Order: sequence, then C-alpha cells, then structure tokens
Amino acid sequence: MQHLVDTNDLSDKQIEAILADAFAFKHKNPPPFLENKIMVNLFFEDSTRTRTSFEIAAKRLGMGVINLNPSSSSTNKGETLEDTFANISAMDPDCVVIRHKDNNVARNLSAMNLSRVLNAGAGNYAHPTQALLDYMTLVEHFGDIRGKTIAIVGDIISSRVASSAIRLLRRMGMNILLVGPKAFLPPISFVGDALPQYKKLEDVIDKVDAIMSLRAQIERHEKPVFKDYSHYGHKYCITQEVLKGRNILIMHPGPVMRNIDISDEVLQDSRCKVLTQVTNGLYMRMAILKNLILDS
Amino acid sequence: MQHLVDTNDLSDKQIEAILADAFAFKHKNPPPFLENKIMVNLFFEDSTRTRTSFEIAAKRLGMGVINLNPSSSSTNKGETLEDTFANISAMDPDCVVIRHKDNNVARNLSAMNLSRVLNAGAGNYAHPTQALLDYMTLVEHFGDIRGKTIAIVGDIISSRVASSAIRLLRRMGMNILLVGPKAFLPPISFVGDALPQYKKLEDVIDKVDAIMSLRAQIERHEKPVFKDYSHYGHKYCITQEVLKGRNILIMHPGPVMRNIDISDEVLQDSRCKVLTQVTNGLYMRMAILKNLILDS
Amino acid sequence: MQHLVDTNDLSDKQIEAILADAFAFKHKNPPPFLENKIMVNLFFEDSTRTRTSFEIAAKRLGMGVINLNPSSSSTNKGETLEDTFANISAMDPDCVVIRHKDNNVARNLSAMNLSRVLNAGAGNYAHPTQALLDYMTLVEHFGDIRGKTIAIVGDIISSRVASSAIRLLRRMGMNILLVGPKAFLPPISFVGDALPQYKKLEDVIDKVDAIMSLRAQIERHEKPVFKDYSHYGHKYCITQEVLKGRNILIMHPGPVMRNIDISDEVLQDSRCKVLTQVTNGLYMRMAILKNLILDS
Repeated sequence: MQHLVDTNDLSDKQIEAILADAFAFKHKNPPPFLENKIMVNLFFEDSTRTRTSFEIAAKRLGMGVINLNPSSSSTNKGETLEDTFANISAMDPDCVVIRHKDNNVARNLSAMNLSRVLNAGAGNYAHPTQALLDYMTLVEHFGDIRGKTIAIVGDIISSRVASSAIRLLRRMGMNILLVGPKAFLPPISFVGDALPQYKKLEDVIDKVDAIMSLRAQIERHEKPVFKDYSHYGHKYCITQEVLKGRNILIMHPGPVMRNIDISDEVLQDSRCKVLTQVTNGLYMRMAILKNLILDS
Repeated sequence: MQHLVDTNDLSDKQIEAILADAFAFKHKNPPPFLENKIMVNLFFEDSTRTRTSFEIAAKRLGMGVINLNPSSSSTNKGETLEDTFANISAMDPDCVVIRHKDNNVARNLSAMNLSRVLNAGAGNYAHPTQALLDYMTLVEHFGDIRGKTIAIVGDIISSRVASSAIRLLRRMGMNILLVGPKAFLPPISFVGDALPQYKKLEDVIDKVDAIMSLRAQIERHEKPVFKDYSHYGHKYCITQEVLKGRNILIMHPGPVMRNIDISDEVLQDSRCKVLTQVTNGLYMRMAILKNLILDS
Repeated sequence: MQHLVDTNDLSDKQIEAILADAFAFKHKNPPPFLENKIMVNLFFEDSTRTRTSFEIAAKRLGMGVINLNPSSSSTNKGETLEDTFANISAMDPDCVVIRHKDNNVARNLSAMNLSRVLNAGAGNYAHPTQALLDYMTLVEHFGDIRGKTIAIVGDIISSRVASSAIRLLRRMGMNILLVGPKAFLPPISFVGDALPQYKKLEDVIDKVDAIMSLRAQIERHEKPVFKDYSHYGHKYCITQEVLKGRNILIMHPGPVMRNIDISDEVLQDSRCKVLTQVTNGLYMRMAILKNLILDS
C-alpha cells in the first residue's frame, strides 16, 4: 500500500509518471478512473484551498468523498486518534486524506498500514502535494529545472510548504536560497543540512530564476514576531520595484497577503503564477490519486 | 459564459428551453447529463431548502458537489472574497452557487468572469431560481399566465423572492399587486416603477388568481416591526375565512410560519402549492444546471 | 414504501435477502446499483461511525449524499421538524437517514409516508442497522446462531444498540443474558418481557458463546452513575483474566473505552470482532440500501 506522507515516499519513476498524468489531465479531462471509490477527509486544521482541491480532484475522477469533522467525532466520546483511524479504515476507504498540526500524525497513522494515507499538511514538516504542484508549475515554465535557482522568502521556519519544497526541488536539481528575517529562518538542522540564508531580497535578486513567497503564519507563532506586518512587507514584499523587470517566476502557496507578501501589481503580472499553481494543484492531485489508488 | 444572477440574465428563448426541460425532468428522470462535473456551494447565509435543492439537483445529474464553509475558510486568514473566488475558479469548477446577504456580491463575482455564477439569494435584490420555480408552478396550474393577477403579501421590502418574482412575472405578462403593512411595502423605486399597493387582504381578494405569501424576515429587520407576529397574522394570514371558497392558488417560498402566514387548514388544501413549489424547485434547478453548463 | 425504523419492520424473508447481499458485497464489490439516487442525512445527534458508514455505503453504490445540519437549518427560522421533513421529502430523495435522541421521531416521520425513513439511532429505543450488522457478525462466525447464548454487558438501559439487538437476536433464536450494575439494568418492561439479569461477569462467563460489551453513555445520564469509571471497569471490563482462554466472541458497537469496557490485550485478540463489526456494518448498510430502495 503506497502512502504519501512526504515526497520522499515516491520513487523518481513514480514522480515522473504522476507528473506526466498531471499534464495530460490538464490538457484533456480524463475518464472517471476511480468511479465509486472512496476518499475520507480528516482535517484537524481548517483548509479551504487544499481540501477543496483534493475534493474536486476526487470527484472529477468519479470518487465519493466523505468529510469528517474531527471536532464532532468519536474522539469526543473518548476515542483515541488511532482508534478513530482504525475504525475508518475498517470501512475500506480507498484513501484517507489527513491534515494535522502535529508533524508526526500522518506518518504514524500510515505506519499502521490500515488505509492509504495522503498527507494534506503535517505541522511544519511536510505538505507533499503542494511540493509536487510547485514542481509541476516550475517544469511547466522552465522545462528543465536542473541548475535553476529559487529563493524561498518569508516565514520558512513555520512552513511545511517550504520544508517539502526544499526536499523535492533539491532532489530535482534546483539550487535553493532562503530569505527572511532571523526569526523566520530555520536552524541549520531544519532540512538536514545548511542552505544559504539571506536577510535581504536585494542580496539574492540577481541570482534567482524563481521566488517562492510565503505568508507569515501568525497562527503558529507563540508570540508575534512583528507588531505590524507592514514592517515585514517593507523589506520582503515582492514588488515591481524589487523585480525591476527581471524575468523571475513568482510563486506563493496562498492565501497571499496582498502588499505584504506580493504587491497587487505583481499579482497581476504574467510572471506571477499564484493562480496557475492552484490550477496545477487540481490536476496534480488527480494524478496522485490515480497513480496511488490504481497502482498500489 | 452564462451566469444567472437575476432572471434578466436569461433570454426569453432560454427561459422557454429551461421550463420545457424542467417539466420533462419532472415527468421522467433524465440521464446524468453532467456526470463528474463540479458544483461549488459558497453559502454565506444559512439555507436548508435552497442549498439542498441545488445539491440534490446536481447529484441527480451526476455532478460532484463541494460545500465550502466560508466561516472556516481562507477569508479567516485575511483573504478577500474576490481572491477566494479567484482561487476556487482556478480549480475549474463548472459552477459556483453563491448566497450572500449583500445585494451585489454575486453580480460582482460574476463580472470577474472566472467561473459560472449561480445566485442562490442576494440580499433583497434577487433570487432567480426561486422566481423560475414559482413561474413553473404558475404555468403548471394555469397554462397561460398572461393577464392573470397575483398578490404578493407580507414582508416585500426584505424579500429577494418578491423582487425577482416581480421582475420575472411582469415580464411574463402577469399583473402584480402588493399587500402588507406600511413597514413591509417597498418604496416606489424598489422595482423600477410603481406597483399597486394595498394595506388589506380584503381589498385584493376578489381581483387575484394567485397569492404569494411571504414570511416576515425578522432576522433582516433592524428593529422589530411587530412585537408579536400574531398581530400581523390576524390581518395577513391566508385562511379559509379569507378565501371563502374562492379558487385562488396559494404559494409561499418557505419556511411557512403556520397560522401567521398561512393557516394549517389552507396548507392542507389542494389549492395550496407550497410543497409543489419545492418539488418544482428541484426539477427547475436541474433544468437550469443542464442548460447553463451544457450550452454555455 | 418500506421504512426501517426497527428490525421488526422487516420480514424474515427480507432479512434473509439482506444478509445474503451483505455477505456477497463483502466478498465482491457490487455494481453501482443506486447510481445518482439520493440519500439525505438528518442527524440531530453527533455521529462518526454510523453516519460515515451510511455515507460510504451509499457512495459505493453510486448514490449522492446530502448532509443536512439541523442546527443551521430552517428549524431555526421557526419551522417544525415535520415541516422540514415534508419539505425534504418534496425533493424526492430515495431515503432519509435520521438520528434523533427522541425514541419516536423516526417512527413518527416514517408514518407521514412521504419519504423512505432509515433509522440511524432513536433514543434508547432502536438502532436497527447496528442490530443487523451484529447479527451478520454472529452468523459469519457461528454459522447457525440458534440456541447460542450472548451476554450484553454494561449500560443496557441507555442503549438502543442493546434494545434493537435483544429484539433481533431473540427472534433469530439466541438466548440473551443481561449483565451490569443495577443502575444500568433495565426494568422488566424494557423489552417486553423479562430477560435473566446478572450483576457479575463471573456468573455468566461459563454460559456464553458471545459477549456484547457496551460503553457507559454518560452523555445520556441525568447524574453520574460512577464517579470514576475505572471502578466500573474493575468489575465489567472484558480482560484475558475474565476470559481465561474460553472461546468467547467479543463484540462492541464502539467507540470502545479501552481498559474500561475491553482491555487492550483482548482488543488485539482474534476473538474480538470490534473492527469486523465496523467492516460488516458497511456491507450490511449497502445491502439494506439496495434491498429497500430497489425493491420497495
């Protein structure tokens, strides 16, 4: 049974097959490969974008989707998360999609090997489907991404998007630079070994082919890092003034804080791929579902 | 891309085609014209009847339906409604069904032209699918409704049902009378030009072929219009005593306040079409979905 | 129109047909017998297991499922439960699945005969699909269950699982013993006539082929029966020490309070069928849906 807790769970060959399917599905609507198969969504954190993307992907392939609300579930009657998962698994779903603030929950449940686990966001550890859709967006634009350089800008230490992207994009041959205020930059141990860290956008702007801007995840901070995020925006917002006409691809996992993360003007620029990422996310998740459920 | 924000968005020919399909679907269950196509429900106000009707209509045609809960969505992370809509649209849904207390939200989002917008209730401005199902119910009973007279009774000023019905039924050739206490009657500007207004049911009861009774939408009133709605009921409740055997069709968009809007006795009378309206709503929405999604 | 409010609503022949289908579906995934047919879930009490089981069962057969949240529904606008049900029924669903804390709601709504009613839990009166899945689990293990003896252990007086099981399993020829503290044992009138009642597990352990352990439903108790449920567990927990190697089938409707209802060790024993019950519940509900919707 093939789980997807992080992109490391996939072989190069699997990633290649998934990517090919994602592009094919974007080009032409596929048949309902997964008709009447079942996805269970178990989201312990709020999500619009990711849950909706998984749900649309599943339904376009013919799946039935069940959304469990963990807060009104049996865990209220004293059941452990593991027992809830074992019970759901006993109903033979084809996959269980899990989001949890804890880094280890999806991994631990997948290790029970009772149902196929798809991680839709685990603490600041991993968000593999986001990494794969970002990879798709980069390949779609650059073709060959080996040797290209991407700067990840912002609240990297809180971000599962960053940690999954770092693992996948390095594996695919990209150079990665980290940019942000000290409080947002990870300790060296964060992703296994040191990546170049910068405090200012201007120090990297001439070195990069792409920028991945991140939202400050203030809901994860124990105490506020900035009193006023416009101060953060003054230094790290991706603006036309920063870009100065350079041909740099702009990405962001959303939701974008306008004029703090990226300026209104840049958001309307054709180099900005924020909504393309969302579209690619749909086709990538369709491809992931098809490959993992049909082939494992 | 054909939106449906108000019935004015539809040509006479489109309404004719939709009505014909609605009657055909009521007669015989259609094939799943919209298999694996996607509806996203974005309801900023509570709804049982309308959301359920849209959802059953979609599913009987084979669609997948995604219900977003705006209160637990990305708007909480600081995203604007327009950005949330742009993100949903980037996932290529076949329609987005929107209910919002603001008169202009559905219209403004439809103007972005990113997804097909179906208005499931906009402030007191428009509720086009309700107007169309009411139209269907009238045609089903009368055949030709041109020249027939309908009285709309009750909280007209709060009611999108009234405003959409007025526009559509006048266009289809009906005479419309408004009946209610002063506080419930609209200023002349409400629907473009003056309609005859009456304070008492007895002043119109001999002139009408149909009555559309409305619930007092106390949740929309800034301050209570009546301390006790039984006082309202004494004057405006549709009872057998008011009808005195006259052959008048009784309609109501629901939920009915029993013995305030319509008496228990009249609700059980065969002239009362409240539940027929609900049934027609299902087939009308199936017809709307089929015509708008397949043909535009 | 065939409702399922209690198992008494089904003839022996119907139960036989449903059981045969449930085993067949467990052996081999059936075709989508109920494609684009509609289930409406109306759960006035929280549920993970039962709602999810119904929903997966429906979707594996191709049905569309609509979940209504009664707390945000028209009943808030002053509509009665009967009117809400009449409105839902006017949308022609193929079944309405109802859970309510009141013993009589499902029965009363079924008597309106507007939609097919499936009871997913009614007060402490009936939970027929649970009784049928328990029956399936017993037949799967024992083949012929006539003359076998089952002890129901725990909070019997609060339990619709117990009351439905007692009616069905006695009808199928089993002997039933009730075990628990006085406060948990029902008055003689509870299930029509007296069943043997015991205060201690050791008084029945040599007489039984199966034990159905029940959770103390503290949410239904007016005042706490035990200050600390570990005291209850000391006397009624099913442990290896109690079983002492006897070949007794262990069942529980879930969620299990570990080491109060059943010990960790017994939960891992192959004689313990808790998760098998969950799996059988899925196939039993598929069989119920198919038989009731296609044949009535």
